[in-house]
Amino acid sequence: MVLYMIGLGLYDEKDITVRGLEAVKKCKRVYLEMYTAILMVSKEKLEAFFEKEVIEADRNFVELGCVDMIDAAKEEDVAFLVVGDPFCATTHSDLYLRCVESGVKVEVIHNASIVSAVGCCGLQVYRFGEIVSLPFFTEKWRPYSFYEKIKNNKDKGLHTLVLLDIKVKEPTEESLARGKQLDYMEPRYMRTHQAAEQLLEAEANLKQGVYDEATPCFGLVRVGTATQRVVSGMLKEFVGMDLGEPLHSFVICGEMHHIEEEMFKYHHHGK
Amino acid sequence: MVLYMIGLGLYDEKDITVRGLEAVKKCKRVYLEMYTAILMVSKEKLEAFFEKEVIEADRNFVELGCVDMIDAAKEEDVAFLVVGDPFCATTHSDLYLRCVESGVKVEVIHNASIVSAVGCCGLQVYRFGEIVSLPFFTEKWRPYSFYEKIKNNKDKGLHTLVLLDIKVKEPTEESLARGKQLDYMEPRYMRTHQAAEQLLEAEANLKQGVYDEATPCFGLVRVGTATQRVVSGMLKEFVGMDLGEPLHSFVICGEMHHIEEEMFKYHHHGK
Repeated sequence: MVLYMIGLGLYDEKDITVRGLEAVKKCKRVYLEMYTAILMVSKEKLEAFFEKEVIEADRNFVELGCVDMIDAAKEEDVAFLVVGDPFCATTHSDLYLRCVESGVKVEVIHNASIVSAVGCCGLQVYRFGEIVSLPFFTEKWRPYSFYEKIKNNKDKGLHTLVLLDIKVKEPTEESLARGKQLDYMEPRYMRTHQAAEQLLEAEANLKQGVYDEATPCFGLVRVGTATQRVVSGMLKEFVGMDLGEPLHSFVICGEMHHIEEEMFKYHHHGK
Repeated sequence: MVLYMIGLGLYDEKDITVRGLEAVKKCKRVYLEMYTAILMVSKEKLEAFFEKEVIEADRNFVELGCVDMIDAAKEEDVAFLVVGDPFCATTHSDLYLRCVESGVKVEVIHNASIVSAVGCCGLQVYRFGEIVSLPFFTEKWRPYSFYEKIKNNKDKGLHTLVLLDIKVKEPTEESLARGKQLDYMEPRYMRTHQAAEQLLEAEANLKQGVYDEATPCFGLVRVGTATQRVVSGMLKEFVGMDLGEPLHSFVICGEMHHIEEEMFKYHHHGK
């Protein structure tokens, strides 16, 4: 029997591939990974489209409970759905190894991920350096480790894809202190204006001239969805710009080639 | 009217997304981009699956003839199919701009690309540096420019995805000299054993100790297809290893985290 790890792509139920849909159709159990990314469509809509129940798998599930899923996959085909591509998050390697060690065959059905779809802004995917993650700063915790990575990319003329923090199913501090039943905070998704502020704060503090207020950037908003926006501008301009609902990603441009500059101009201020 | 730029993903007709398939179904004209990547399935199979004719677009088409396609898109919906993701090759930005400048709306339907699917080997996509391309060396032309880029990645502990050269629709030198009707060479696809040889040659000549015979690497073979192989080993081991039919890609590992090492061990020699 096979455990299918199936990418759902970037947007809604129709972004699954035909191959992925066929695999879902033949599985009795269908799990949906809900902890490393957010689904842009409701679980109910997925269920209606697949004509079967979809079981939510949160972080606890994979850390503790996926034994059930792996056991099931010894008896029957099982689908494990992942937003984007199945291998763009760490824990799925972990799950993969657990499966093969248990004698369960894994088949991966790839799909689009922001890592490749970032090309929609017009910058060449071959000219990106290391991807960085930008965490929500708190009063006490303002880590600038992304800054050095952006510097390395900039030094080589490379663009940087900046993934913006997502806080989903985070327990409240009070419920953690209490210890028993955990309460969860409202989900939070960093948006481009916050990203621009935090990036400028890091530069203001570390002062290595990696980028400045005039550095050309892209805001990528709901990539692959019907309401996608690609907006280029100077870093400073993003501070005051509300680009609407999540998910947002951000790009700091390195050296741009001719055609990249044309695309930058075309997307200026999201025109 | 809309010009749909639709990613076909990595393998066969079933890797198109449901959204992509719906778009194809409503277009009278369907073009297939045949010059930056190779399709792992025949055009005829695509046509049978879509139940419509598919027009081949080669390099000349996009450089000269795509005017027809853009004109058609002013009157009716048109599909432009691209292997992998539509924005993982330069010229599609160019096409995109030509369309919007002509007043044609473009809608992009993303799909998997090797750029994100490389994660299937178990290395985290966030820990890759700049992608490099490895061209076929000729007697006189042995460019080592990839070496410096691998060095930069290695210096930061990052992995490197090495895209291997593809020669498709290359005119023969004789027919170029003759000038009129061009004859084309057989398509050629670099494989991992050739990649390993060329990489070691560059190191032997430039001697900066970027990698050596014992450097851990991955060979990625026909990723996303039914006959996919993921093989890890030392760089030297790949020289004598025949991993079969194309397409091949290669990965030079940087520093590996625990789970990455586990995946490396699991894939050792393609077990």
